[in-house]
Amino acid sequence: MSKPSSPRNYVYRFGGKSADGDGSMKPLLGGKGANLAEMTRIGLPVPPGFTITTEVCTYYYQNKKTYPRTLAAQIEKGVAFIEKILGKKFGDQQKSLLVSVRSGARDSMPGMMDTILNLGLNDQTVSALAQSSGNARFAWDCYRRFIQMYGDVVLGVQKRAGEDHEPFETVLHELKHERYHADIEDTKLTVDDLQELVARFKKLIAGRAGGEFPQDPWQQLWGAIGAVFGSWMNDRAVVYRRKYNIPNEWGTAVSVQAMVYGNTGENSGSGVAFTRDPATGEKVFYGEFLINAQGEDVVAGVRTPEPVAQLKSQLPAAFVELENIRAILEGHFRDMQDFEFTIEDGHVFMLQTRNGKRTGLAAVRCAIEMERERLIDWKTAIQRVPANQLDQLLAPVFDRNAVKDARCIARGLPAGPGAASGKMYLNAERAAAAARRGEKVLLVRNETSPEDLRGMIAAEGILTAKGGVSSHAALVARQMGKVCICGASALQIDYAAKTMTVAGDTFQEGDFISINGTFGEVYPGQLKTAASEIVRVLWEKSIAAKDSAAYQMFRQLMDWCARVTNLQVRANADTPEQAAHALAFGAGGIGLCRTEHMFFEGNRIDAMREMILAGEVEDRKKALAKLLPYQKADFIGIFKALNGLPATIRFLDPPLHEFLPNSKEQQLDLASKLNLPVEKVMARVNELHEFNPMLGFRGCRLGLVHPEISEMQSRAIFEAAAEVQTAGIKCKPEIMVPLVGFQKELDLQIEVVHRVAREVMAEKNVKLDYLVGTMIEVPRGALTADEIARTAEFFSFGTNDLTQTCLGMSRDDSGSFLTHYAELEIVRNDPFATIDQTGVGKLMTIAIELGRKTRPDIELGICGEHGGDPESVKFCYRLGLTYVSCSPLRVPVARLAAAQAALEDVAKRPAKKTTHERK
Amino acid sequence: MSKPSSPRNYVYRFGGKSADGDGSMKPLLGGKGANLAEMTRIGLPVPPGFTITTEVCTYYYQNKKTYPRTLAAQIEKGVAFIEKILGKKFGDQQKSLLVSVRSGARDSMPGMMDTILNLGLNDQTVSALAQSSGNARFAWDCYRRFIQMYGDVVLGVQKRAGEDHEPFETVLHELKHERYHADIEDTKLTVDDLQELVARFKKLIAGRAGGEFPQDPWQQLWGAIGAVFGSWMNDRAVVYRRKYNIPNEWGTAVSVQAMVYGNTGENSGSGVAFTRDPATGEKVFYGEFLINAQGEDVVAGVRTPEPVAQLKSQLPAAFVELENIRAILEGHFRDMQDFEFTIEDGHVFMLQTRNGKRTGLAAVRCAIEMERERLIDWKTAIQRVPANQLDQLLAPVFDRNAVKDARCIARGLPAGPGAASGKMYLNAERAAAAARRGEKVLLVRNETSPEDLRGMIAAEGILTAKGGVSSHAALVARQMGKVCICGASALQIDYAAKTMTVAGDTFQEGDFISINGTFGEVYPGQLKTAASEIVRVLWEKSIAAKDSAAYQMFRQLMDWCARVTNLQVRANADTPEQAAHALAFGAGGIGLCRTEHMFFEGNRIDAMREMILAGEVEDRKKALAKLLPYQKADFIGIFKALNGLPATIRFLDPPLHEFLPNSKEQQLDLASKLNLPVEKVMARVNELHEFNPMLGFRGCRLGLVHPEISEMQSRAIFEAAAEVQTAGIKCKPEIMVPLVGFQKELDLQIEVVHRVAREVMAEKNVKLDYLVGTMIEVPRGALTADEIARTAEFFSFGTNDLTQTCLGMSRDDSGSFLTHYAELEIVRNDPFATIDQTGVGKLMTIAIELGRKTRPDIELGICGEHGGDPESVKFCYRLGLTYVSCSPLRVPVARLAAAQAALEDVAKRPAKKTTHERK
Repeated sequence: MSKPSSPRNYVYRFGGKSADGDGSMKPLLGGKGANLAEMTRIGLPVPPGFTITTEVCTYYYQNKKTYPRTLAAQIEKGVAFIEKILGKKFGDQQKSLLVSVRSGARDSMPGMMDTILNLGLNDQTVSALAQSSGNARFAWDCYRRFIQMYGDVVLGVQKRAGEDHEPFETVLHELKHERYHADIEDTKLTVDDLQELVARFKKLIAGRAGGEFPQDPWQQLWGAIGAVFGSWMNDRAVVYRRKYNIPNEWGTAVSVQAMVYGNTGENSGSGVAFTRDPATGEKVFYGEFLINAQGEDVVAGVRTPEPVAQLKSQLPAAFVELENIRAILEGHFRDMQDFEFTIEDGHVFMLQTRNGKRTGLAAVRCAIEMERERLIDWKTAIQRVPANQLDQLLAPVFDRNAVKDARCIARGLPAGPGAASGKMYLNAERAAAAARRGEKVLLVRNETSPEDLRGMIAAEGILTAKGGVSSHAALVARQMGKVCICGASALQIDYAAKTMTVAGDTFQEGDFISINGTFGEVYPGQLKTAASEIVRVLWEKSIAAKDSAAYQMFRQLMDWCARVTNLQVRANADTPEQAAHALAFGAGGIGLCRTEHMFFEGNRIDAMREMILAGEVEDRKKALAKLLPYQKADFIGIFKALNGLPATIRFLDPPLHEFLPNSKEQQLDLASKLNLPVEKVMARVNELHEFNPMLGFRGCRLGLVHPEISEMQSRAIFEAAAEVQTAGIKCKPEIMVPLVGFQKELDLQIEVVHRVAREVMAEKNVKLDYLVGTMIEVPRGALTADEIARTAEFFSFGTNDLTQTCLGMSRDDSGSFLTHYAELEIVRNDPFATIDQTGVGKLMTIAIELGRKTRPDIELGICGEHGGDPESVKFCYRLGLTYVSCSPLRVPVARLAAAQAALEDVAKRPAKKTTHERK
Repeated sequence: MSKPSSPRNYVYRFGGKSADGDGSMKPLLGGKGANLAEMTRIGLPVPPGFTITTEVCTYYYQNKKTYPRTLAAQIEKGVAFIEKILGKKFGDQQKSLLVSVRSGARDSMPGMMDTILNLGLNDQTVSALAQSSGNARFAWDCYRRFIQMYGDVVLGVQKRAGEDHEPFETVLHELKHERYHADIEDTKLTVDDLQELVARFKKLIAGRAGGEFPQDPWQQLWGAIGAVFGSWMNDRAVVYRRKYNIPNEWGTAVSVQAMVYGNTGENSGSGVAFTRDPATGEKVFYGEFLINAQGEDVVAGVRTPEPVAQLKSQLPAAFVELENIRAILEGHFRDMQDFEFTIEDGHVFMLQTRNGKRTGLAAVRCAIEMERERLIDWKTAIQRVPANQLDQLLAPVFDRNAVKDARCIARGLPAGPGAASGKMYLNAERAAAAARRGEKVLLVRNETSPEDLRGMIAAEGILTAKGGVSSHAALVARQMGKVCICGASALQIDYAAKTMTVAGDTFQEGDFISINGTFGEVYPGQLKTAASEIVRVLWEKSIAAKDSAAYQMFRQLMDWCARVTNLQVRANADTPEQAAHALAFGAGGIGLCRTEHMFFEGNRIDAMREMILAGEVEDRKKALAKLLPYQKADFIGIFKALNGLPATIRFLDPPLHEFLPNSKEQQLDLASKLNLPVEKVMARVNELHEFNPMLGFRGCRLGLVHPEISEMQSRAIFEAAAEVQTAGIKCKPEIMVPLVGFQKELDLQIEVVHRVAREVMAEKNVKLDYLVGTMIEVPRGALTADEIARTAEFFSFGTNDLTQTCLGMSRDDSGSFLTHYAELEIVRNDPFATIDQTGVGKLMTIAIELGRKTRPDIELGICGEHGGDPESVKFCYRLGLTYVSCSPLRVPVARLAAAQAALEDVAKRPAKKTTHERK
């Protein structure tokens, strides 16, 4: 077969041992089409077919749902190609070619778009199929299924408002009711029953679709192609793409492929398998199959399939062939594969393969083990673990004692590891609504379908009564990193009553349940959680490192990460303990030490309140003097824990009213404690009340109006540093002035810092090494960064506040509209979770450019919540920041993201950037 | 006299009929020095002298308070120059030269810096002066005054903490007490008394200054020069410069000038005069003088001076000469002059002239009349009125009836026109503190001094018991545009008791009083105010245009403004009446119509509340349907009033909770009115509560979550437009979507607008001309303006919110630190009054550049409070905006500022920008 030479090729064929396309052409052929071509090329048994490119989809939507002029001729050639290989003919009365028509986007979107099977059947070819298969019942069953699918998907004969069931189901139900009884199984219907059903289906279509079911296979084909392209824009596909940030412009390809049948008898079957266990990453042949069934039956979760290992005894030859295929796939694709197969009369056919979705645990294990097996190198291994999923290894599990005391009320398949508690909801909409109200939610269903996607996104975890590990629920949960249990068959769900009954107990919607997705166990109520294995090794030291396989893998991955990246990861830590935890995870220092947290402990708050209530500077200084020893002690602990690593310490930041009591009772209490009239306390609370505290008297404004506060904090820092340094431990404080918008603000605070530093150095006779810098967290700070950098030795982007001010959006109040914004596609991500690169990122870019203009070597960091978000970390890497800072538990995620960013950067711009690589 | 040719000339001489400098050299010689040179050049009688340049001041502060190397020789030459002209000699025992040493900055800073008179006197020269003047008492009085002044200013012998009086005053007091009685007048002291005083003053200096009073005139001179340069940085000078935005870098010059004496007898005197009345602008010779007194006595307000017209009878020859000088000054400087003169034994000497500070009224009248007199052209006339001062013509006056019923308790000189009420304070600090608490304050003093500046800035008006129209209080009030009455001698002020007693009544600090600065009348309590004359002509039509001279002048000025400027002025108006008012002031349309204001009227609020409380879309639509006719009627009125001018209408903007009642009682009321359970009302209030409403669910977020609101508003606008247009009146609605940060936000709202427009146009069969655009009021909107301009047909900068978000500063909460910020010189102006050009201005610049890149002809406006601030208007002009929008009453101010901006622009960049000029 020669490469097609027409100016624009819309149709790529595959079959025999060759293909027009290959596995690298996913953008053009979709994931499915590209891999069908690739599998054909490497000699795997793939039914012949062709793929219509995604360019046609784009053309279709840009040209009022019409096709390129040359498409029809190319499709005809494609069909002829299949006909030639199989010796069949489309619409032929004897050797009739039947095809499937499937969607396939660049990224897999399981179940989101439409599929048509058995296309080519009509009143004539159904007899040909009956004859060639020697099975009239099979042929008519295929035909009635095809008509139903075509009527639904292509002709739009669907449930209308007021109808309880799908119209085709209603017709089927009526026939069963007339001839047998309502509950008789489909498989019991006779050829005559099926022929009658076909007649009634055709009548239904004629009545509701405004025209006859088309007998012409070509008309059927064009209808099916249009329906698949049309399904690219259906609601659930749009929701899915929004969730996974798949651009609408990508479009879908359409693959037309000769049918093979897993439902021709006991020597046939269909299955879905993984080359390794997608939940744990273990190297076992994993998956499930159904004898005498089509692939759709396996995924649908209606019949519960058998583990793939059972094939060994049931169809040994096919099993051997599949084991062989499994090895070939991994050797070729060098990644864990998720593939679909059909066994037709003992012959194995491959219908799809793709990189398997996996849990975070499995991602780590596959990466580590494949590197050991020399399938991939360590750099590839790093890139194989989605940084966000690393969280799953670090997330809490149920507390061992809590589990011991708890009563397991049901078991199911462990489809998504982890521990989750939440209020149970049986319907996706109600679950999503409850989550919007701020509830923690578990979605419980008999089985899930693409319609449930919104509810699944909103839920902490998913529990189904039916379906296996390759069911929709399992697949989606795995991809989202949700805790999930499938097929917990003991559950009796009553959608109408909104109850779930199990083990004698009945749960109402809104009742708490807990699920352990690692072991597949369901518990009533809210179970207490405990730290992950890795945390127990590193922080609690309750497990020895050598005893934890999970830790060993984690350690290996982190060691690899340490080899690449010049983006440091620091931690947001306010106590010596938090600092130690961060260091255990490989943090390079503290990027944000919030001094105000120190004031809430013990009876420090009293001195803090005394300070706030002081009328005169002198009284304020007295109260501050009481706070000084506490702060100093805190800093001593932190400096010791850091052992010479830098500590970015922020001056007092929050509005003062946060430190005062709100209730009258507490105010009375405080007044008597401080020996003040309660009216004075109330007056001060009142005075400090603000309409928009976020934009009020806080940040450096506190230290500017009351310089004695900054003075005390400077003294605490420098005295602590002097003491620690005298004890032989190095210190590197980086003092950070918050909320700076004007150079002069910073200058005035810096004056205080330098003065106190000189004083302490003279008093203690030590030389201290320190920096003074500022947070860039209001737009004016970013816009005047050239001025601010005159005195600022570093910038730290406070992207939380920068997002609030840049977008004019309060983090605390945006919940009421941000969910709508996501649905309206105004925002792709929650801007408080992932940096808004277009807006906030532009301010950061401006600030960096201006700052470097004044001070080329200025240290640049980020200390907002975004510092632990992989996408944001990668953005920070591209901006050239010195470090990101995040909560201690996110340090590994950030380190992984930073390493991946460096590797991506090297891949994109070889030899441009010197990536620090040690080995 | 030849021009000096040394490489750097620090000393500029004047005397005879020639001078080294001239009037254009104010930056180098200061205002005083330059005009002394200029007056000398045009032949006016100026005592000879020389000016040390401001460059020396700059050098002095940049070089640790030292002088340039060549300065001493130049000063020696300068002194020799004076000696030669007068035939006297510095320090000579017979013909002794005495000089004054005065400061003089580029802009006048009255009373802010130090002055030394009679320099050159010592134990020897005092006798020479006695002999040459034939008046020993005069000579010794000069000497003791010089020693006191020198001791205070140069040697720093000043009041210490714990002392009640200035030390020199104490010594004087003791002597009076010993020899006569405490209250004896200074003029009664004999030569012997004065000699004793000189001895005691010298002793005081020796004791407190740590050294003798210097006898060497050269040492005296250098000491005085240093003191004047030093006074540039004294507290009150710094405060003054901050208030008037005078850069510290300008520095002051020092003028050394031969002394002349107005206190040599009844044939001598000193005065301060204006070429026109600085309060009203009337062309009369205005001012005051004291016979047998030095100039300082006139300004100090200790003796109440006589009107300058009295000179005619007292010293007729001098009066004729002064009248002549007055004419020469105006003819030469072509502006109203404020000059100081001394008459020494019948000879007139000019000591200073400068452009006179004047009230807004006087500024307008002077400008108009000088144009009529052909002293200036109309363009200059426009630039002669400080735009902010135009306000004074438009500001309310006391209500005529209120005044009729009120009891005038005291009268004084009308030194600053206008009406002001406020709480009385007798001390500047307490007045400033009260103003910070939000009180309206009047500062009441016997007389004011530069120390009172902060209190004067804080006060609505100033009332003094002593001093004339050229007293410190009058001068400063005029400059600041404050309402002011001087010399209300009936007032008895008791600083210790903090009371003011007048006409039998005693007022405590904090009591309300009212002052009419136009007529000089003081009233107890808070008087009702009424509209200005111009408002009564244009809005109320209660005065015929021809009967109001003020209106005629105003009209002339506005007509001139209409000739220049391509920056349109629109108004913020929410009702037909406001629109009519704005148009009467020459607005070019409405730049901001806030639709929410319409919802508060009558029982519309009920429907609004019903809408907010609606649970379902359908209920909300029902409530909105009730609001539709109201909104439509409003728009019909506005469109009719505008008669074809554009109306920028903003969609609902404020957070919904602003429409709901807060008190439990009102909530109960509302619940029963709407037939809802009160719990539901309370729950909704609670649900809508926000932590930072400024950054919450408001602006376009409302219309995006509830598109039915935007739909109703669009319909009301278009139905109104259709109706008005059908009636033959053109309409130009410009629909404005608030708070846009993302293009998609605007797109979704624009879809609604266009759809409704199409519907209404089809229903009513009309074609409507409209624009849809957006406010740029969050930084993200500015930063992504290129994207937003894809669909926005105009931008309107909402600089109120843009300032809040750019600076991270809530307008409602920033009071607690913004005053500190002004004192710390972090901000020069209140950023909510005058646009922060560096920060907010940068965002505007970015937005304009990006917006024009996408849509070169995009319409650009501003609708924040800044639209009525002259400095901000000029900034907007330079940015190239299409229009500014402000409250109707500020329209004239904005028009004047816009015209001035255009004229300044033409002056700076001739022929670059085509200024639209009609005549």
